[in-house]
Amino acid sequence: MVDTAGVTANDDKSKQVDGVANSNVGDTEEDIVTPWDVAASSALGVDYDKLIVKFGCRKIDPSLIERFEKVTGRRAHPMLRRGLFFAHRDLSLILDRVEQKKPFYLYTGRGPSSGSLHLGHLIPFLFTKFLQDAFNVPLIIQITDDEKFLWKGLSFEQSEKMAKENIKDIIACGFDPAKTFIFRDTEYMCKAFYKNVLFMWRSVTVNQNRSIFGVSGEDFVGKEAFPAIEAAPCFSSSFPEIFSGRKDIPCLIPAAIDQDPYFRMTRDVAPRMKCPKPAMIYSSFLPSLQGAKSKMAASDINSCIYMDDTPKQIKNKINKYAFSGGRDTIEEHRKYGGNCDVDISYQFLKYFLEDDDELESIRKRYTSGELLTGELKAIAIKEVQKVIGDLQAKRKEITDENVDEFSVPRKLCYQY
Amino acid sequence: MVDTAGVTANDDKSKQVDGVANSNVGDTEEDIVTPWDVAASSALGVDYDKLIVKFGCRKIDPSLIERFEKVTGRRAHPMLRRGLFFAHRDLSLILDRVEQKKPFYLYTGRGPSSGSLHLGHLIPFLFTKFLQDAFNVPLIIQITDDEKFLWKGLSFEQSEKMAKENIKDIIACGFDPAKTFIFRDTEYMCKAFYKNVLFMWRSVTVNQNRSIFGVSGEDFVGKEAFPAIEAAPCFSSSFPEIFSGRKDIPCLIPAAIDQDPYFRMTRDVAPRMKCPKPAMIYSSFLPSLQGAKSKMAASDINSCIYMDDTPKQIKNKINKYAFSGGRDTIEEHRKYGGNCDVDISYQFLKYFLEDDDELESIRKRYTSGELLTGELKAIAIKEVQKVIGDLQAKRKEITDENVDEFSVPRKLCYQY
Repeated sequence: MVDTAGVTANDDKSKQVDGVANSNVGDTEEDIVTPWDVAASSALGVDYDKLIVKFGCRKIDPSLIERFEKVTGRRAHPMLRRGLFFAHRDLSLILDRVEQKKPFYLYTGRGPSSGSLHLGHLIPFLFTKFLQDAFNVPLIIQITDDEKFLWKGLSFEQSEKMAKENIKDIIACGFDPAKTFIFRDTEYMCKAFYKNVLFMWRSVTVNQNRSIFGVSGEDFVGKEAFPAIEAAPCFSSSFPEIFSGRKDIPCLIPAAIDQDPYFRMTRDVAPRMKCPKPAMIYSSFLPSLQGAKSKMAASDINSCIYMDDTPKQIKNKINKYAFSGGRDTIEEHRKYGGNCDVDISYQFLKYFLEDDDELESIRKRYTSGELLTGELKAIAIKEVQKVIGDLQAKRKEITDENVDEFSVPRKLCYQY
Repeated sequence: MVDTAGVTANDDKSKQVDGVANSNVGDTEEDIVTPWDVAASSALGVDYDKLIVKFGCRKIDPSLIERFEKVTGRRAHPMLRRGLFFAHRDLSLILDRVEQKKPFYLYTGRGPSSGSLHLGHLIPFLFTKFLQDAFNVPLIIQITDDEKFLWKGLSFEQSEKMAKENIKDIIACGFDPAKTFIFRDTEYMCKAFYKNVLFMWRSVTVNQNRSIFGVSGEDFVGKEAFPAIEAAPCFSSSFPEIFSGRKDIPCLIPAAIDQDPYFRMTRDVAPRMKCPKPAMIYSSFLPSLQGAKSKMAASDINSCIYMDDTPKQIKNKINKYAFSGGRDTIEEHRKYGGNCDVDISYQFLKYFLEDDDELESIRKRYTSGELLTGELKAIAIKEVQKVIGDLQAKRKEITDENVDEFSVPRKLCYQY
């Protein structure tokens, strides 16, 4: 491991992870990817090609990205062109609708957590903001405060407070209030929504639910009931004020791929409801600072960079914790080069550095050993500080009134 | 079997039932009593003493009836003094509240069915009307149109239409619009209600739900989720407009005893919600015309007397189908007497004949053989025609506007 700045160090655990990872490439050990747990068997992270096969969704290939650019008239977002949003279901049907000038909407969501959102939470929202601009369509954001009430044993007061703070973080991503509805489940629950929940409840058996979500007898009943709540916003009829009671408007869901079980289930049921199937576009997981074996998770604060971290905290965290693909000594690093595939600083740059040429240059120089770990970290620190700094500047301006503005069920502007 | 009028006849099946019943007295075969199925192993009907032990509720004894009369200043309803409302949980705590002038409310409900309500459906409502008058308290009536949507595969339109017709039948029982809120689940579902549903979902495990309600893997998920929906109206906080957001007001639930699993579950969870436990007062099942082995059930139209049956239909049904406790010939009947315990006409009189002395006289005369089956049936026909005729007269006057009046969430009049 290289540490030219003299302040970074991967702990022994990280080193072991790296070792395991290298021996694990091509291993048959299974990654765990569920809406509640993500654990990769390799330091390279989850084997997404395998996951696509397992889940039955499709890889986003260059021709689809090309079509996206042609249809929207925009260059694809860095996360899309670099394969970080890498899988989909029916994205091409959504692009058809753009061409045909037929309406659709975006739907994404979040289970509220305490404190600020971290970078991993922000990925789908930053990408969704890009999609909202590219498509100019309404966006529905579901805040599953009921999920947190159920899973985490919180009071409603705690869950609601967390949700409100999270909503401000989300708004800071730059969503257009004329085109965006943000709702908490416990606040919005209404008859139109409940009817779609009932449809899901009637269409999925306990055994199916069990095989999709792994619910066991010791789990509370809410775990059986909840998936329908996350499914309901896939149907435009859940939002009569927004879509004038129409039930034929499909949605596109930008999300991390661990949410696929919910929407796979929804797609199975949609035809029986005479509703269009939701389409999805899925991201990989932003790795934790410690490495790609786990995703950035609020349960481990040292694995995360938070939206309210100071520039200094960001610098220290990346220097101290960001797993390095560099060699143990400068000499070895110069001779053999670093490994971008496991290097977390490099991974962050893949998500956040705008310029493709610059990224490619960094990759080459790090791989050849020209760029040292400390130097790579310094670039990553600067980029992450910029992303977080921009969000913080917007976050500061957001008031309770702004939150209210986004939370009123109302007709949203859309083109078609 | 005696048929003095020459128009009544029990079919062979009924006779066999009777035979089985007699040999079954004291049998160990189990009665089935769940919210979805009721089947007695004896022609005497369900063994309610056993059921009380199994469910863990309490028998209503004469001293409790006496206290009810003292506290309310009213003579107990015939169904109460004749042991047809025979079991309870915490009824005495509710009577304490009456004495202490502390608020409580009544809660009952109905899963809507097609066509008119039948006599069996009407029992809890007729008794609830009596309780509302006796206690002068608010009444909440839940119409579980969601349940029917889930269980029966109906469309929402069908389920709602049935619900609206059923509500008119219920209003005809004479409820006071100033003190009564009637709601359909799919119409009322709101955040206050949903929060209590969530509490239930978090507090009951899949295994517990399974052991209480017998849900299996092949059942749809809604069967796991629904019990919480029937539990939620037990909590005054589910109705903020009615109870000004108070969560400390308990309810008394008049219902048939097959609903106990829902409320047993609710009572277990209530302390964790820091809410009072619901109290209950339970009726036995109005037997089908064919005998007490099964309850009157809309699934078998010949087992029922409906609220829209004409006097002639009532007469024909009772004459044709009402299982008789009489003997096979007039001679035998005169010699050995009839058996009121299995005689459906007599059972109907127990529910509907006001005058205790008259009922006792009928019982004695039938048991001694003085009264023949045809004569007993004629008395029952007259009483049932009277009950149904009174309801029909009120039902005719009920408009859609009346239904709306009952359906608005609003402050209800109550004394304390």
